[in-house]
Amino acid sequence: MPTTIQTQFDTLNQRMNACWRRILDNSPLVAAVLGGCTDRRLYALYLIETFHYTRHNAKNQALVAVCNDGQHSPYLQFCLRHAADEAGHELMALHDLKTLGINPEDVTASQPMPNTDVLIGYLYWISVQGNPFQRLGYSYWAESCYEAIGPVLQGIKTHMGIPPQAMTFFIDHATIDTKHAEMVQQMIELTAKTPADWQAIGRVLDTSLTLTGRILDDVYIEYEKLVKGQNSAYTYLNTLIK
Amino acid sequence: MPTTIQTQFDTLNQRMNACWRRILDNSPLVAAVLGGCTDRRLYALYLIETFHYTRHNAKNQALVAVCNDGQHSPYLQFCLRHAADEAGHELMALHDLKTLGINPEDVTASQPMPNTDVLIGYLYWISVQGNPFQRLGYSYWAESCYEAIGPVLQGIKTHMGIPPQAMTFFIDHATIDTKHAEMVQQMIELTAKTPADWQAIGRVLDTSLTLTGRILDDVYIEYEKLVKGQNSAYTYLNTLIK
Amino acid sequence: MPTTIQTQFDTLNQRMNACWRRILDNSPLVAAVLGGCTDRRLYALYLIETFHYTRHNAKNQALVAVCNDGQHSPYLQFCLRHAADEAGHELMALHDLKTLGINPEDVTASQPMPNTDVLIGYLYWISVQGNPFQRLGYSYWAESCYEAIGPVLQGIKTHMGIPPQAMTFFIDHATIDTKHAEMVQQMIELTAKTPADWQAIGRVLDTSLTLTGRILDDVYIEYEKLVKGQNSAYTYLNTLIK
Amino acid sequence: MPTTIQTQFDTLNQRMNACWRRILDNSPLVAAVLGGCTDRRLYALYLIETFHYTRHNAKNQALVAVCNDGQHSPYLQFCLRHAADEAGHELMALHDLKTLGINPEDVTASQPMPNTDVLIGYLYWISVQGNPFQRLGYSYWAESCYEAIGPVLQGIKTHMGIPPQAMTFFIDHATIDTKHAEMVQQMIELTAKTPADWQAIGRVLDTSLTLTGRILDDVYIEYEKLVKGQNSAYTYLNTLIK
Repeated sequence: MPTTIQTQFDTLNQRMNACWRRILDNSPLVAAVLGGCTDRRLYALYLIETFHYTRHNAKNQALVAVCNDGQHSPYLQFCLRHAADEAGHELMALHDLKTLGINPEDVTASQPMPNTDVLIGYLYWISVQGNPFQRLGYSYWAESCYEAIGPVLQGIKTHMGIPPQAMTFFIDHATIDTKHAEMVQQMIELTAKTPADWQAIGRVLDTSLTLTGRILDDVYIEYEKLVKGQNSAYTYLNTLIK
Repeated sequence: MPTTIQTQFDTLNQRMNACWRRILDNSPLVAAVLGGCTDRRLYALYLIETFHYTRHNAKNQALVAVCNDGQHSPYLQFCLRHAADEAGHELMALHDLKTLGINPEDVTASQPMPNTDVLIGYLYWISVQGNPFQRLGYSYWAESCYEAIGPVLQGIKTHMGIPPQAMTFFIDHATIDTKHAEMVQQMIELTAKTPADWQAIGRVLDTSLTLTGRILDDVYIEYEKLVKGQNSAYTYLNTLIK
Repeated sequence: MPTTIQTQFDTLNQRMNACWRRILDNSPLVAAVLGGCTDRRLYALYLIETFHYTRHNAKNQALVAVCNDGQHSPYLQFCLRHAADEAGHELMALHDLKTLGINPEDVTASQPMPNTDVLIGYLYWISVQGNPFQRLGYSYWAESCYEAIGPVLQGIKTHMGIPPQAMTFFIDHATIDTKHAEMVQQMIELTAKTPADWQAIGRVLDTSLTLTGRILDDVYIEYEKLVKGQNSAYTYLNTLIK
Repeated sequence: MPTTIQTQFDTLNQRMNACWRRILDNSPLVAAVLGGCTDRRLYALYLIETFHYTRHNAKNQALVAVCNDGQHSPYLQFCLRHAADEAGHELMALHDLKTLGINPEDVTASQPMPNTDVLIGYLYWISVQGNPFQRLGYSYWAESCYEAIGPVLQGIKTHMGIPPQAMTFFIDHATIDTKHAEMVQQMIELTAKTPADWQAIGRVLDTSLTLTGRILDDVYIEYEKLVKGQNSAYTYLNTLIK
């Protein structure tokens, strides 16, 4: 990799790591999990939101190709191939919820939390306008997030006693995504030519990761409502209390 | 107005007021303005973001009509009429910046701040999917915000000494929007039939207002960079320092 | 009007007139009407298709503004204003059908004929991509078509004995559209700067008018089925036989 | 295959064959080729239009998945996979033109002919609205067209002396598409449940094939201009005259 590209990736990684730091250090959800929370409802709530936004990933990824005005390119091909590969991954989140004992229909009938809706809307927006390569900034962190969230997943496994067959979304993705992460990196190397390209990719990386952090906050608010026995759309998760 | 509709509007207003309260009580920008900040760069930064998101309001409003699958209706007519009425209002923000001495081309060449982009993307998203009436939740607070932000505008006027001819966006809208606010209220009365309709409207009200509050936060972060002489894309505003 | 612009309009008018000539000279529907056809089912069939494509005119017109990437402009304003003005005009066609004794629900439940679908799809397509001014080519002939189709409307009135209150779509539009036609012409004068602009406008004029001619052909084919008592989705129009 | 499904496919095939019959019997282009036309410009013109509409096939195919509102399904997966498979196939048409000695930039800079634009617009339209399975009607004939157009391709090869390396688009597709045709048939078997589904598929089959026939007519009109030495945007093809 030429030095200048390596420098650009270093900048990108610093930005990503700083953003992860902000989220991991400030998220009450992360603090609860790392602090030994044994309540599976917290995990279930996060899986539900994962189901909701993951449903749109293949679609907004495909939209990048649909909105491409130029000639065919490896990037356009990547967008469509990647979309096809990602389609239906939300079913793993649904499967994990089912394994926990949750009725999938309760999940599919639920509405995304506000910040989940915000992330979904943002991903469509950056897929249909602006720098054509900018969505790679989302893929860049999403496909390589397992190092950052490893301790959280470990906490969920250990403290809540979640079996592997109820963590397929995260376990399978950790495997699949190593390959995807390499492809995303190669695609960035291939497409990012100008400082504006790198900046657009970095910007979407930062904003989409920040918005994902806000989903954790929404999840924790709803979790607290359940804990306090307040009015909630998620009381069906109370069957998870042991 | 029948009691049940009045009750629904009361709920909507409580939600709106609580959201405003959260923003006004926690925004460092609001605190600075009410605390007597005399630095016009703060106002200019907010006008720049106002320019950016206002450019999209007519478009996402029109999209609601474009995506309407059903027969013609007063609501569809309202969406198109309202879009035509709102088009070009961003030019008032640009005019105000010009009056302050800012080169409009610096503004039009600037990129929206991340949270401005997030609001814009969200408004397109809720305009193309979900409950067809939900965008009224955005109009509801946007067309009636002058009571809530009155003290802030007063602070800008008094402490920064901004003349009326550099506040046309806010002054003119305060007038225009009284009429619009009534139309929006009537439209909600006409369209919101089910609890789900009211909930969708309330949800978009809450989320879009919260996202607007986050724009204030972005603006304040950029303002602090300018104050500290840090690296910034907005140094062209330093000519506003008296 | 400067000479060069006048020359461009002359070229546009020649293209439009040649296209009308082709349609009027070759359409079996036109021949039937001018030849004294007294069967109101032929008129009703055309009104049904008019209802179908007119429903989309305000929407695809608004889309031109939504897809506009640039700054505000009189053209963008025109698109939104014109969309608002055109919205709901399909209800006049529905009203005329009702006046003739047709149940509006039969009409709204019907599917557009294939060539009507083709015109609708084409108008959305030219509204979302290509030369931003090209949709004016559709408005140009649509708002000034009453001279060309005058004899056909006269034939419908005379031979079929259709009263004015069942011809409101065409009568009202003939009046409204004189004003619209002027606005469209002014907008072309304002926006068409390059030969490519004029060519794009001329191309859409020609293609959309040709596709409209094909709707007449579809209508006539369905009419013949009714006359021959063949299998048809429009047998509900047989109540119009006197 | 159950009898009722076989019957539905029989109806579909009859409709397709009747449509092919109409095109093959009436197209002056087909008559010229079968009549022994040796002029490669005719083939080149058709390849140019093939390049233009093929560029959009992957995009409108992907759009079907993007616009899908429901849960994940084999059909949604098929749409994305098929889109990824079809992407870039227009480059084969470009390659064939290059092999003939045509500058690819002349081709990519050219505008589609009117009826090519109409087909492209129609395919987007039926991909974003209406029956979600209806685009299968386009794939159904497109992936199995080699029997119907075999004699035409044979004529091109024999009379014009086109070598296989300048016919890769058609030769490769004939092979690829046998597999695709099976997948399309299976997908129709899987998705088409109601008479309305079958009718929507048949309707799109019929209309999109008819529109493709009109492209042949446009091509022949431009060919005749070249033959007569009239004003034409395609004079760069005259280098093909031996």
